[in-house]
Amino acid sequence: MSAAPPLDRAIVEQIVRQIVLAQVGNGKPAGDQGYRPNLMVSISARHCHLTDEHVEILFGPGAKLTPEKPLYQDGFYAAAEQVMVVGPRRRMLPTVRVLGPTRPHSQVELAFTDSISLGIDAPVRHSGNIRGTPGCVLVGPKGVVELQEGVIRAARHVHMSLKDAEHFGVKNGDHMKLRIESPYSTTVFEDLLVRADATSKLEVHIDTDEGNACYLDGGTKVELLKQDGGCKCKH
Amino acid sequence: MSAAPPLDRAIVEQIVRQIVLAQVGNGKPAGDQGYRPNLMVSISARHCHLTDEHVEILFGPGAKLTPEKPLYQDGFYAAAEQVMVVGPRRRMLPTVRVLGPTRPHSQVELAFTDSISLGIDAPVRHSGNIRGTPGCVLVGPKGVVELQEGVIRAARHVHMSLKDAEHFGVKNGDHMKLRIESPYSTTVFEDLLVRADATSKLEVHIDTDEGNACYLDGGTKVELLKQDGGCKCKH
Repeated sequence: MSAAPPLDRAIVEQIVRQIVLAQVGNGKPAGDQGYRPNLMVSISARHCHLTDEHVEILFGPGAKLTPEKPLYQDGFYAAAEQVMVVGPRRRMLPTVRVLGPTRPHSQVELAFTDSISLGIDAPVRHSGNIRGTPGCVLVGPKGVVELQEGVIRAARHVHMSLKDAEHFGVKNGDHMKLRIESPYSTTVFEDLLVRADATSKLEVHIDTDEGNACYLDGGTKVELLKQDGGCKCKH
Repeated sequence: MSAAPPLDRAIVEQIVRQIVLAQVGNGKPAGDQGYRPNLMVSISARHCHLTDEHVEILFGPGAKLTPEKPLYQDGFYAAAEQVMVVGPRRRMLPTVRVLGPTRPHSQVELAFTDSISLGIDAPVRHSGNIRGTPGCVLVGPKGVVELQEGVIRAARHVHMSLKDAEHFGVKNGDHMKLRIESPYSTTVFEDLLVRADATSKLEVHIDTDEGNACYLDGGTKVELLKQDGGCKCKH
């Protein structure tokens, strides 16, 4: 029996796995017939964001990203392009998806499982906050980029509109918690940063470690709650 | 630049990663100078348990497991022996550690990340409850075993002594929850099965997905709480 390359997760893990379940939480009391937004929970597999300049180095002069699959937030997409991410000691992830559109800084978002594989000690950071983070080497079909920084584990967060924020009684920059009920694996994720603006849709982003830990694919109930939603009494 | 085999996590992930932090929870009230057990939280990387018969098939007639590293619970150990686990479609995990002592049934415990890699849809089960679960092929240096069943994601659980159980006000078979406080990654694991007996030490077992999701390595506080420790009022 010959064996395929071990653990080529890029093939078997989708770019995004998602679940939408009846939203229950700190919203309007039962009986209220008002605004009740659907809650999308998305698991982001490892991916990267690139600058225009890095797209051209990796994929050739004049290259642009090719939108292949739209993401849930309007205007964002998984590109057809993939890169190899190489860490120290010649460890690598052969296929890491590029998400578009391009950004002012290139950034690689990994789950801890990925970063342990690569031998990179990725810190937990909110997207865009990459100062002082580890770098890596990106290899494309036409060239190589050495990132001095930009490898992170993206901190869990929730996108929402200002109307959603009002509904939940939170504001941009607050923290919430997400409770996933699933067989033998019910989990509450605290520290969920609220990213509220005029146009975003209600969507929680967690990574593959988090999605696997809570068995999101088997989830039966999802609750988005205020971080301080627990009672203050002592048990 | 030549590349090492991708994602050979067996090399970079320890068999067990552990943390002991000041135990806080539903125990005696502050000021009580009584029994306060230390809480060990252990991340089990993928591993397998074998029968005596399967040890001999995989490692040769007369072979016994070789204890290499004692585990936290007395009498249990990581063996020197490893097997290759092969799933459908020629996917495989090249090095899966065998834990001893041997058992009445062979069983492979994977995180979901591993099972996705293998292409096996491993159900969440408590150890020993393997009826109707998927099988796999185990390859050792001297032979091959085809398991008809036994591939699971081990459900999170907590071992403890009867004295610990009394301390927490729980009994064997109850459920508790574990809260890990860590930078941007604070997580509560519910559905933690209590396995209480006369001699076990207080130890929570979670898998690598769970340990990575809650950033256990960066944990600053651990709480073991009764499942119904939350208040009953509506927020």
